[in-house]
Amino acid sequence: MPEPRTVLDRFHTELPEPPAPGGAYDAVRVLGKHAYVAAQFPFHNGILAYQGRLGQELTTADGYHAARLCALNVLAHLHHAVGLQRIVGLGRFEASLQVAPGWDEFPHVVDGASHVFLEVLGDAGRHARALYGVDRLPLNAPVELTAVLLLT
Amino acid sequence: MPEPRTVLDRFHTELPEPPAPGGAYDAVRVLGKHAYVAAQFPFHNGILAYQGRLGQELTTADGYHAARLCALNVLAHLHHAVGLQRIVGLGRFEASLQVAPGWDEFPHVVDGASHVFLEVLGDAGRHARALYGVDRLPLNAPVELTAVLLLT
Amino acid sequence: MPEPRTVLDRFHTELPEPPAPGGAYDAVRVLGKHAYVAAQFPFHNGILAYQGRLGQELTTADGYHAARLCALNVLAHLHHAVGLQRIVGLGRFEASLQVAPGWDEFPHVVDGASHVFLEVLGDAGRHARALYGVDRLPLNAPVELTAVLLLT
Repeated sequence: MPEPRTVLDRFHTELPEPPAPGGAYDAVRVLGKHAYVAAQFPFHNGILAYQGRLGQELTTADGYHAARLCALNVLAHLHHAVGLQRIVGLGRFEASLQVAPGWDEFPHVVDGASHVFLEVLGDAGRHARALYGVDRLPLNAPVELTAVLLLT
Repeated sequence: MPEPRTVLDRFHTELPEPPAPGGAYDAVRVLGKHAYVAAQFPFHNGILAYQGRLGQELTTADGYHAARLCALNVLAHLHHAVGLQRIVGLGRFEASLQVAPGWDEFPHVVDGASHVFLEVLGDAGRHARALYGVDRLPLNAPVELTAVLLLT
Repeated sequence: MPEPRTVLDRFHTELPEPPAPGGAYDAVRVLGKHAYVAAQFPFHNGILAYQGRLGQELTTADGYHAARLCALNVLAHLHHAVGLQRIVGLGRFEASLQVAPGWDEFPHVVDGASHVFLEVLGDAGRHARALYGVDRLPLNAPVELTAVLLLT
């Protein structure tokens, strides 16, 4: 069996099963050369791995790993919908965090997602990002991620 | 008088009057082949039909109808600015909800908007979506919607 | 020395130094013909000029100026990354405001950013916009801005 040639090949086999959309929308919408990925939460094998508020029930390290899971679900959906090899690049992702009053470790948490995109996609995973501390996320999730990508 | 040929034709006559922008921006910005629709609120005939917080002053059913109104205003602006027939597809919409602590009926509310886009645009109305529970929306509105679309 | 020909020329020399990204992301991500500008805060010459909550520690006038600074940082990053002359147009910007309960001066604050884009870019600076009142922004900033633009 040949060696995987890229980090992307390795990840193909490790990506989680993409969670089913919880409403009347598509997890990935491909339109022209853009792919829009709908809100992803820190699911792992069908289970929401983290629930609660950063700085309250959850630590910054929890948040980092939750953000990683969100990013892996973004990639899992893209892999399922179009194949990762069609990705020219990630444009921007938006991270919303459910946070406690006074908590301010945003970049440390959101870097969890940034690191996954860079690890899996290399230079194509470079990105701009937005981050919000919101009062309430669906499912009491600590992190929600959406993304826009350019495809071949 | 001929029968309307598509659901779209029927809706042409039923779309609300698009509300005027409340600031130094355009309700629809067309740039290249993309249309960006600015924040829409649940206005109906010039009146903000819903105000308050979901799970407090407002029920989930109220939220569903408020989300429908937001989506109809998105479409009304697009119809006015470029004509619905130029829409190749909706890419993503973003829904922000003004919610009470512990409230978690996000998908049921946001499906209100999803259903309108699918009803009016058919397959072109398929979409990815993001949803946020925010502390405070302008005008004490329960729902705010923005959208990005691809045009011919 | 020749007269500057456009308002844009004047602003070239007045744009602030773009603040360094605070994480594993790019301040500007150019992908195809789109530029995605990552979250900008009201920094001025390396100092966060405004901190706190609108309607509490900060007035609406503070917020207006904070929004102006965010928009200037968006432009400073674009100027540094690609040059303002490559901008065909601004599509949409997203403004998140850290607000006190009951505060509702959103458009007055967000117009600060809208005015900057129109002043500097003229018609190319026209835009759609989204605005959110969030519980908590990074750095205790009152305003955060992201933007998507079309380039030549």
